Amino acid sequence: MAETNRKWVLKSRPKGIVERSNFELLEERPPSIRDGEFLVKNLWLSCDPTQRGWMEMDTYVPAVAIGEVMRSVSAGQVVESKHPGFQKGDLVSGAFGWQDYAATDGSGLVPAMKIPPGVELSSALSLYGITGLTAYFGLLDVGQPKAGETLVVSGAAGSTGSFVAQIGKIKGLRVVGIAGGEKKCSWLMRELGIDAAIDYRKENVGARLRELCPKRVDVYFDNVGGEILDAVLANLATGARIALCGAISGYNDFANMPGLKNYLNLIVRAATMRGFLVFQFAAQIPRAIADLAAWAAAGKIKDQVDVANGLENAPDALRRLFTGENLGKQLVKIGDPA
Amino acid sequence: MAETNRKWVLKSRPKGIVERSNFELLEERPPSIRDGEFLVKNLWLSCDPTQRGWMEMDTYVPAVAIGEVMRSVSAGQVVESKHPGFQKGDLVSGAFGWQDYAATDGSGLVPAMKIPPGVELSSALSLYGITGLTAYFGLLDVGQPKAGETLVVSGAAGSTGSFVAQIGKIKGLRVVGIAGGEKKCSWLMRELGIDAAIDYRKENVGARLRELCPKRVDVYFDNVGGEILDAVLANLATGARIALCGAISGYNDFANMPGLKNYLNLIVRAATMRGFLVFQFAAQIPRAIADLAAWAAAGKIKDQVDVANGLENAPDALRRLFTGENLGKQLVKIGDPA
Repeated sequence: MAETNRKWVLKSRPKGIVERSNFELLEERPPSIRDGEFLVKNLWLSCDPTQRGWMEMDTYVPAVAIGEVMRSVSAGQVVESKHPGFQKGDLVSGAFGWQDYAATDGSGLVPAMKIPPGVELSSALSLYGITGLTAYFGLLDVGQPKAGETLVVSGAAGSTGSFVAQIGKIKGLRVVGIAGGEKKCSWLMRELGIDAAIDYRKENVGARLRELCPKRVDVYFDNVGGEILDAVLANLATGARIALCGAISGYNDFANMPGLKNYLNLIVRAATMRGFLVFQFAAQIPRAIADLAAWAAAGKIKDQVDVANGLENAPDALRRLFTGENLGKQLVKIGDPA
Repeated sequence: MAETNRKWVLKSRPKGIVERSNFELLEERPPSIRDGEFLVKNLWLSCDPTQRGWMEMDTYVPAVAIGEVMRSVSAGQVVESKHPGFQKGDLVSGAFGWQDYAATDGSGLVPAMKIPPGVELSSALSLYGITGLTAYFGLLDVGQPKAGETLVVSGAAGSTGSFVAQIGKIKGLRVVGIAGGEKKCSWLMRELGIDAAIDYRKENVGARLRELCPKRVDVYFDNVGGEILDAVLANLATGARIALCGAISGYNDFANMPGLKNYLNLIVRAATMRGFLVFQFAAQIPRAIADLAAWAAAGKIKDQVDVANGLENAPDALRRLFTGENLGKQLVKIGDPA
């Protein structure tokens, strides 16, 4: 049993891009557990754009309090248990936070789940975690795509976006991805096999959408909000569906996000813009996992991960989401299973 | 048979609020009809906010061309027919334009329909016309309200809004109306029996919504767009539905409409914003008419009309929609049936 639990607590609410100085790394003895709890040793941390919102304000969950352990989904191994459902040695995922050890009863925003044998810990946080599930339900249940339609996805080289793009191809859609930089755009086309990519840093997104989507956009999966969302709103097909997943373009400065100008096109095109949270679809997770696993086994979906090492680097890994450095799912590896 | 057909043609595209000078009143002989057509004498014209869009640009239909008769829904009487479905003397509604006489085969954006016996011509354009149907389908099919929920409707003292407010009460909702001026607000509460009204000209809409909707807004029927839509977006209940019907606040100056800032709440509240056009629901019109007629017969729904007289006053009547002078459905009466 380790002598020390390192934990990152929130020290200040970020202004702009999250900084290492918004956190403080503390050391303490690992927590003891009560009846009904287990102690998990974190091995992998998930980095998600929504964590930026948790740091700043109440959203669909209360903000992380100053001095509280930074909230995070993670994967780890049970090292001690007084919980009937979890045994020492079990590999589990849950909202265990940025720390080496967490004492938990398994409840919370992301309830603790055992990771099935054969599933890598990184995949438990990526393809089979919040990320893959968000892509799956957002595209299929919110977006309601039909084969032959045109799908546009922003943040396409990010974790959720790259799964959306691939599921789109599996479902017979024409897929146009929007991403930042040539490297990401060529990866999307060559490695993921999407039909076209727009480099929003160099290209005029509206003009490129008009070129690439002459029949306009049937389904848009939005990870970024802001000006790119507005450009897509100007290019909607009749009956289009927009799945609003996130708005990373504004997470660093909500107050100064540019307003949406083109929303009247929702009327003209009889289109729908729907925000969603993966938690709404909890009851349907088994169906999603089965599909995702089948696609992975058939080699139809790649789980691209981008791995930082060491708990001490968690703030910098999170920061990469907002500077656009990550390709695929950003993770932090802390250790290996015993 | 009259010697003269007066017709308003579009002379210039409006900048700002529609002006009489955007139109020109011409006189010509009434048109002759071909096989498959009938000649209708217009008796009532419908004034609708969407006409402002038709004057300026292509939307869900092409813009009215310069020199073309101003597009309008109207009600009239068949005075001559070479169409098997329409006989001389029939009372009909359709998209017959701002003119005394129209030659038509009955097809178009709003297909010609016979007005059933016993239905007043004004009601054919209001409760049983595009207006009532828009309220019905927008609230019930797009808004999906459940008894006990809170409905907010903007433009509540206008034609569509006043029907939405009343259908909301019929369906057991708590109804909060937003309108401009004390007269409209007190009319909404006293005459239509809604639960509360907000005078957007005098009151802070956001602050009043927070007071009046402590459990926030479940369904919002939006006729105005702009800042009021943004204020409602900041006060959505989880799972809220927004039916986007129109955006009269911006129709006079699309380019300078303020952008929506609070759309991220669609994600946080897992809410849906859906634009719609009444034409999508054409197949379900009989159900709607049956319900509206039953409610009218039971005295549960009032058809408030605001009538201008004379074809020569059509531009001024249309203008009233944008200055907020109308209470209920703005119509222009041109004549009586033979």
